[in-house]
Amino acid sequence: MADAYADLLNKIIEIGRLTAIDALVQWDQDTYMPPQGVSARSEMCAQIAITAHKLQTSSQLGELIANNNETGDPIRDTIIREAKRDFERACKLPADLVEQLSRASSLAKSAWVQARQENNFQAFAPHLDDLLKLVRQKAEAIGFDNEPYDALVDEYEPGATTAEIAALFERLRADLVPLSREIAASPNQIDDAILRRNFPEAQQEALCKHLASAICFDFTAGRLDRSVHPFCTSMGPRDVRVTTRFDERFFSSAIFGVLHEVGHGLYEQGLDPTHQFTPMGTATSLGIHESQSRLWENMVGRSLPFWKCHLATAQEHFPDALGNVSLQNFYKAINKSAPSHIRVEADEVTYNLHIILRFELERELVSGRLAVKDIPEAWNQKSLDVIGLTPPNDADGCLQDIHWSLAGFGYFPTYALGNLYAAQFFDKARSDLGNLDEQITKGEARPLRNWLQENIHKHGKRFRAAALCEKVTGNRLTTEPLMKYLDGKYRPLYSLA
Amino acid sequence: MADAYADLLNKIIEIGRLTAIDALVQWDQDTYMPPQGVSARSEMCAQIAITAHKLQTSSQLGELIANNNETGDPIRDTIIREAKRDFERACKLPADLVEQLSRASSLAKSAWVQARQENNFQAFAPHLDDLLKLVRQKAEAIGFDNEPYDALVDEYEPGATTAEIAALFERLRADLVPLSREIAASPNQIDDAILRRNFPEAQQEALCKHLASAICFDFTAGRLDRSVHPFCTSMGPRDVRVTTRFDERFFSSAIFGVLHEVGHGLYEQGLDPTHQFTPMGTATSLGIHESQSRLWENMVGRSLPFWKCHLATAQEHFPDALGNVSLQNFYKAINKSAPSHIRVEADEVTYNLHIILRFELERELVSGRLAVKDIPEAWNQKSLDVIGLTPPNDADGCLQDIHWSLAGFGYFPTYALGNLYAAQFFDKARSDLGNLDEQITKGEARPLRNWLQENIHKHGKRFRAAALCEKVTGNRLTTEPLMKYLDGKYRPLYSLA
Repeated sequence: MADAYADLLNKIIEIGRLTAIDALVQWDQDTYMPPQGVSARSEMCAQIAITAHKLQTSSQLGELIANNNETGDPIRDTIIREAKRDFERACKLPADLVEQLSRASSLAKSAWVQARQENNFQAFAPHLDDLLKLVRQKAEAIGFDNEPYDALVDEYEPGATTAEIAALFERLRADLVPLSREIAASPNQIDDAILRRNFPEAQQEALCKHLASAICFDFTAGRLDRSVHPFCTSMGPRDVRVTTRFDERFFSSAIFGVLHEVGHGLYEQGLDPTHQFTPMGTATSLGIHESQSRLWENMVGRSLPFWKCHLATAQEHFPDALGNVSLQNFYKAINKSAPSHIRVEADEVTYNLHIILRFELERELVSGRLAVKDIPEAWNQKSLDVIGLTPPNDADGCLQDIHWSLAGFGYFPTYALGNLYAAQFFDKARSDLGNLDEQITKGEARPLRNWLQENIHKHGKRFRAAALCEKVTGNRLTTEPLMKYLDGKYRPLYSLA
Repeated sequence: MADAYADLLNKIIEIGRLTAIDALVQWDQDTYMPPQGVSARSEMCAQIAITAHKLQTSSQLGELIANNNETGDPIRDTIIREAKRDFERACKLPADLVEQLSRASSLAKSAWVQARQENNFQAFAPHLDDLLKLVRQKAEAIGFDNEPYDALVDEYEPGATTAEIAALFERLRADLVPLSREIAASPNQIDDAILRRNFPEAQQEALCKHLASAICFDFTAGRLDRSVHPFCTSMGPRDVRVTTRFDERFFSSAIFGVLHEVGHGLYEQGLDPTHQFTPMGTATSLGIHESQSRLWENMVGRSLPFWKCHLATAQEHFPDALGNVSLQNFYKAINKSAPSHIRVEADEVTYNLHIILRFELERELVSGRLAVKDIPEAWNQKSLDVIGLTPPNDADGCLQDIHWSLAGFGYFPTYALGNLYAAQFFDKARSDLGNLDEQITKGEARPLRNWLQENIHKHGKRFRAAALCEKVTGNRLTTEPLMKYLDGKYRPLYSLA
């Protein structure tokens, strides 16, 4: 029996190593690959996918899983449980469906890029139709209790159900919409013009690295590079790569982008290296991952204590732009809130409204209650209802995100779940650590980082997101900590009652 | 039968893609990987090796090879021939011997690093003993006609035999030793102090990129980065990576290092992309590869016409160091020749003597006629005989190269073969292209680059090195073109008769 476990573990590690190889090959594609390398690169990626799929669905792996029962040892049981889950999911998906999805989303991605450029939803619609058919087949193949969307969400947020998410989001919408309306109606609007002065790229990069180190990102076990779209990826806790882009006319883009990606990076660096390449050394869900990025980006990075500590350094980097800016004005500017069209540029209050809009629409799309051709109208109406404005065109409306073109239905809700988890974790960390604001003001990020590692990172996939939240905070996930946090921050900022 | 070929080709391409993945993973390790990433990286490399070995020795591949006979089509026949060669070599090597070699050379490499630092050959000797035993087993497993060294050379230079190489090197030694003695005895010694002024790194990098482009390296299909040891690697003709290091106190290190690596890179970029990942899209031997790097580094890069064209640009990059240096003095300095201890710093005349020394010693080592414990004495004696001086210690003598610690016996001769091929190709290119010096003076490297691509690069592995040489130049490889070139260049430089 000991050997059966060792054999299973070896197989799992082989798959984990291939996942790491894939991550590196993709990272290189987005950072350093010369432009002409793309066609060879797609073949290399396909080769990794073929090799991994063979391992993931091999009858040998199936037998090893069948030969391993629960042992009572939490590490072993986690690895066996996750191996079983992954094997069953992989086996349920017919190889030709996987290939069709891969081909269709490759075509859809190109079509989306062009459709967005040309503001032409009708050119993208047939691709989305094809993808939805395949995605529904995928959901059927995987199976679900209540609705097909369950099977899709479960890929990104194992254990989460559509109904639970819908209930949380309904409550969140009920609280957020009035708050965002109050902010929009406040006579005390914030002007963030100081953030739109000239911020030379080299200085931004230096400040980003300084702040990343300040929040405990370990550059001997990670890197910061440039890419068109910022991301974080990992070859294990000792090789974590984050990327950013720089906008010389906007302070926030790279600085908060890096704090966000480094938040993801800290989760990866906080995983237990002794469990590298196994589920015990892998993040538990996208929602929990996003909670770490949002916690450092917003709850720490956009806080007054953080800039009490770091504004002077920022001013040294940008004496012309920030030299005579007061802490209060700087803090206000980085926290300006207003309804906007583009999700990735949205502030903390309105961001979740963008997610709720997408969740409600894609749930309808997957179920078939909303037809693809009716998306623009539905999007614009819901945008008005939820966010408070109608996009000027589809390019800045229903065509703005890449996710659907990649068949990533079920991904969006993890962003808002991340914000909810972040607030609930942060609240608990604050009560456990006592003088958190003082620590952050002094530049001591280590206690918070250690708390997160101890309570969240080091467990890998041992606990599902919901169970982890209860274990760490003593409560199920609710909207209250986030609303308490937002009320506490934004009511004073906008002089609301 | 058509299907049998298509199936074989697919298998070959799968192996080729894995080779490209391995190349990228290694490139990253030597350029951007954070230091702590090394242990995960070795696992990732092992995973690629395991996966490739399975494919390379699968019975399915064996059957496909058995089902494919020669067709008369040169492309197919090349691919079938090379597939058969690789399969047979892979199957002949027992898996446990491969693993032992991998483990022993991993240990030996660390031991070598330390032994070299501490100038302690005896600490390295037991590792070298182990490696030689395994290498002899490897030669026995592969098989050979005359001596075990044949089986080792054949890995790097397919089709070459020890006896042929020995005959060429004997002739080369007979001609080179007197020439190097004459140079050393000349009253007209060259002073290269101008190359040892201050050359800021950023300017060196800019000049390297300028010169790489000038000799037709395509930066949309390649990159130049930094690494501790310069190298060139490739993920196919449209993604070629060269690296360099910079020494601010020595002009030649990066500049000629980059011309050398870019010479390798031009071979890779010159392969036919329609045959990517197959033997028809792969370089034919290390000797031919080295001929391309040496041709661009030395025959072009250290020529008077090249610097007639580029010295002004170099002076713009280094106005302080080179501003008032004449073309003649610059040309002399970059071609200074003198006996020296370190192979990688040797000039064009003495470089091959370093190789002859190593070839003669390693042939004796593999055959067992020379014992490991006697290496230092044999090295020092041969160094005196061949190069004309005795190294001050083992660190700068028999411990200077990494190759033996990696079990790379049979690799060294390809460096000198490269120099011989380079001279013979360059001679032919000169007669085909007519006004080559004039073209190079005008900065027109394209005709030479196209000639090399047309005659050498685009054929991939279609011709073995020796056959390619005869096909291109009309003659078997001899030492005459190289000696003619060296005499023609160095006799005037040193005012010899």
